[in-house]
Amino acid sequence: MRCVISLSTIDDLAKALPDSGLITDPDVLAGLGHDEAEWAPVGAPLAALRARSADEVSRAVAACADLGVPVVPRGAGTGLSGGANAVDGCLVLDLSKLNAIVEIDPENMLAVVQPGVVNDDLKAAVAEHGLWYPPDPASAPWSTIGGNVATNAGGLCCLKYGVTRDYVLGMEVVVGGPGGEYGTRLRLGRRTTKGVAGYDLTGLFVGSEGTLGVVTEVTLRLRPARRDAPRTVVGSFSGLVEAGRAVALVTARGLVPAALELLDRTCLEAVEDWKHLGVDPSAEAMLLASVDSPGAAGDEEAEAVAAAFRDAGALWAERSSDPVEAEALFSARRLAYPALERLGPVLTEDVCVPRSAVPAMLGKVEEIGRRHGVGIATIAHAGDGNLHPLLITPPGDAAARAAAQAAFDDLIAAALALGGTVTGEHGIGLLKRAGMQQEMPVGVRAMQRAVKDALDPLGLFNPGKVIGADPAFTRP
Amino acid sequence: MRCVISLSTIDDLAKALPDSGLITDPDVLAGLGHDEAEWAPVGAPLAALRARSADEVSRAVAACADLGVPVVPRGAGTGLSGGANAVDGCLVLDLSKLNAIVEIDPENMLAVVQPGVVNDDLKAAVAEHGLWYPPDPASAPWSTIGGNVATNAGGLCCLKYGVTRDYVLGMEVVVGGPGGEYGTRLRLGRRTTKGVAGYDLTGLFVGSEGTLGVVTEVTLRLRPARRDAPRTVVGSFSGLVEAGRAVALVTARGLVPAALELLDRTCLEAVEDWKHLGVDPSAEAMLLASVDSPGAAGDEEAEAVAAAFRDAGALWAERSSDPVEAEALFSARRLAYPALERLGPVLTEDVCVPRSAVPAMLGKVEEIGRRHGVGIATIAHAGDGNLHPLLITPPGDAAARAAAQAAFDDLIAAALALGGTVTGEHGIGLLKRAGMQQEMPVGVRAMQRAVKDALDPLGLFNPGKVIGADPAFTRP
Repeated sequence: MRCVISLSTIDDLAKALPDSGLITDPDVLAGLGHDEAEWAPVGAPLAALRARSADEVSRAVAACADLGVPVVPRGAGTGLSGGANAVDGCLVLDLSKLNAIVEIDPENMLAVVQPGVVNDDLKAAVAEHGLWYPPDPASAPWSTIGGNVATNAGGLCCLKYGVTRDYVLGMEVVVGGPGGEYGTRLRLGRRTTKGVAGYDLTGLFVGSEGTLGVVTEVTLRLRPARRDAPRTVVGSFSGLVEAGRAVALVTARGLVPAALELLDRTCLEAVEDWKHLGVDPSAEAMLLASVDSPGAAGDEEAEAVAAAFRDAGALWAERSSDPVEAEALFSARRLAYPALERLGPVLTEDVCVPRSAVPAMLGKVEEIGRRHGVGIATIAHAGDGNLHPLLITPPGDAAARAAAQAAFDDLIAAALALGGTVTGEHGIGLLKRAGMQQEMPVGVRAMQRAVKDALDPLGLFNPGKVIGADPAFTRP
Repeated sequence: MRCVISLSTIDDLAKALPDSGLITDPDVLAGLGHDEAEWAPVGAPLAALRARSADEVSRAVAACADLGVPVVPRGAGTGLSGGANAVDGCLVLDLSKLNAIVEIDPENMLAVVQPGVVNDDLKAAVAEHGLWYPPDPASAPWSTIGGNVATNAGGLCCLKYGVTRDYVLGMEVVVGGPGGEYGTRLRLGRRTTKGVAGYDLTGLFVGSEGTLGVVTEVTLRLRPARRDAPRTVVGSFSGLVEAGRAVALVTARGLVPAALELLDRTCLEAVEDWKHLGVDPSAEAMLLASVDSPGAAGDEEAEAVAAAFRDAGALWAERSSDPVEAEALFSARRLAYPALERLGPVLTEDVCVPRSAVPAMLGKVEEIGRRHGVGIATIAHAGDGNLHPLLITPPGDAAARAAAQAAFDDLIAAALALGGTVTGEHGIGLLKRAGMQQEMPVGVRAMQRAVKDALDPLGLFNPGKVIGADPAFTRP
């Protein structure tokens, strides 16, 4: 791969992009130059541009290719792996103002949106047509569809309804290389429910973290709104491993809740201290299930989930009959991450293991935290085997930070040993590149590199991310 | 792309692959050299090999790379686009004997299978564990998982449960190029429910029709078996377009049957003549819906589907209360294709349009059949907008064949004009390459070509298929 080395100045870029409102103010640049992965390295951008049209994205990419300026696309910057962090001398391409909902087509249950549309805004807009866009990362009130597509975002209801890739039918991208001169706008995919014409480039772009091109429009599949309000089932457990066993039992019994979430005591206490939602923090772990099968079958399924919790040894397990209480419980889940951030810098883990390994992985989390003397709070999309151990360090404590980094690496190794993956939904970005090297055989890494080189021969798009300039991703 | 030109003889291949039981008998070779796309061109293979292990696949690919012999993988040969048709001088790599179910893991709801496992055999095996593998192409009693993966096969229940790609978590492939020497075995993907490490090579291989490598093992996601037997709703219509309107109305009302199939009068009569299932062939079109929401909600949904049929102008619409009758109706659907084949060579169309365009597309089918004087019978996964107009020609009638080809091309053009795609589920193979050129902008075709060249630099795997050696798939 040829690496882009920028020898350009801001003046060159400004000349190439007149009237673009190029941002060079250091404070604004600093804010736009990173996402929420606090521990990931951040480079110094040359400038930033808030794109107002796909055409402007196209011109910016063309100019950057001419000048050898790397392009780092970003949305709301809520990513947790450093995928949107600036690299030295890059143009940060902020797509958050490209936020029009272009079309909602109820007849075909699809929406066409620009990448800067916020996930929850899309949900609200389609709800007016009796439709539903399921992917619901905890960042849904802030994160954008473009960012969700870039990371193939998951969320709470993946267990039953899948992840972002399952909803992307097509997209418009700005690319370079085989598709045409850098800056070429192309349409991938389709508007139909099914389609198998050629290689699935749409699916390839989903989760590629902006390294293959810039997404300027997305065509999304929608579902009909759910008929009944989901039922909430809560279970309280004397330990993490016991809660993990309950998750395994729910799966083994063929129950498929829409969501099956785990929060440990640290999370519950942090939320309670902050928001006073009235969540009982006395147990060591809580499981929260959401069941949405319609009618009486849904009621029966909710009871069956509660029974599975009990049979696995829950201290107590009940279906919440109070919608206010149910909402408070899910609010606690969504607020867990910001609540913990108030305690100090958080290093967010995002491993995924086979569901049957959830109890073992939760045991490993406890053991690794103890061994390194690191406070670990765990939230998990437990029904998917997707765990987020959150490593909390006192601000400014270098030794604690080093210990947390060591624990982070051990968590990855433990997940891989259990047949898992280093990232369930946050993406590789910068934080998981080493983990990905452990996960993938060298030949697969070389295939990844070959795809990147084929579709971005200049290495212009978000260099260093995912496979990046990592020497392990060269041919064996 | 460098094209493989075989200058090798059978002796060279036999020497390179001792004890492999290389097949050179012309009659057997002729049978193994094509799939069911009768109208697609067929080349003369050098030999065929029935692989008995992944290791044997690996050795065969390595030998073919050394000798410059193209590799054409095949399963049961039930494909309808010529994707498994031999090219001149190739080795046909028959994977149908690689048919072990390696593992069924009920705790994690997944199965690991070799590519030669027949779809229905997998369904039966996982059913014993209370599990379900949903993808159900009409060929399910004969077609293999490897072929289903190669074409990203759909089927009847895609409407609610998705297509093959939605169930493939990982695979073992034999590749060459960046992944290592030709013949290298690599594992793509994962065993976890979620995972976003790197580019989705697994998804890229699904639907690639054997052009990127040979799949030797597949890890599949399963679902819990359905709680209740699906309810069947039947509607009879005075015309195709009326039936299409009913399909659109079902969607518009937010109803999601597991299947929503359309058969026209020709199909119904052909099945009745052959099998005497007692299907009433008096109507011009029949819609068949299968509803599987659990409990009373499923009953209500079935009634709502019947009501939508009636509101759209059905002659009659009823929920079938007799399971024997319901099974007979779906048997009629599954038997439609073989029943029509008894009438003469069938050219199978496989277009997919946005659901709202189903009535318009059905109108186009009638108009095109009339205009070209071609008998067209239509079956359709109507709820997905996926239509299979079947063009029937009297055997040996060259003029009728030419008319059918012209009608075939017009159907493709009509589907594209309605915002559709040239193939919903059968794949490009050989029959749809020209259509794909119409569907995709030249830049996207060049990106497709770049991916193929990057991952199969020798052009060894199934050359000429999908993007093939087609000059339109070169850089613009």
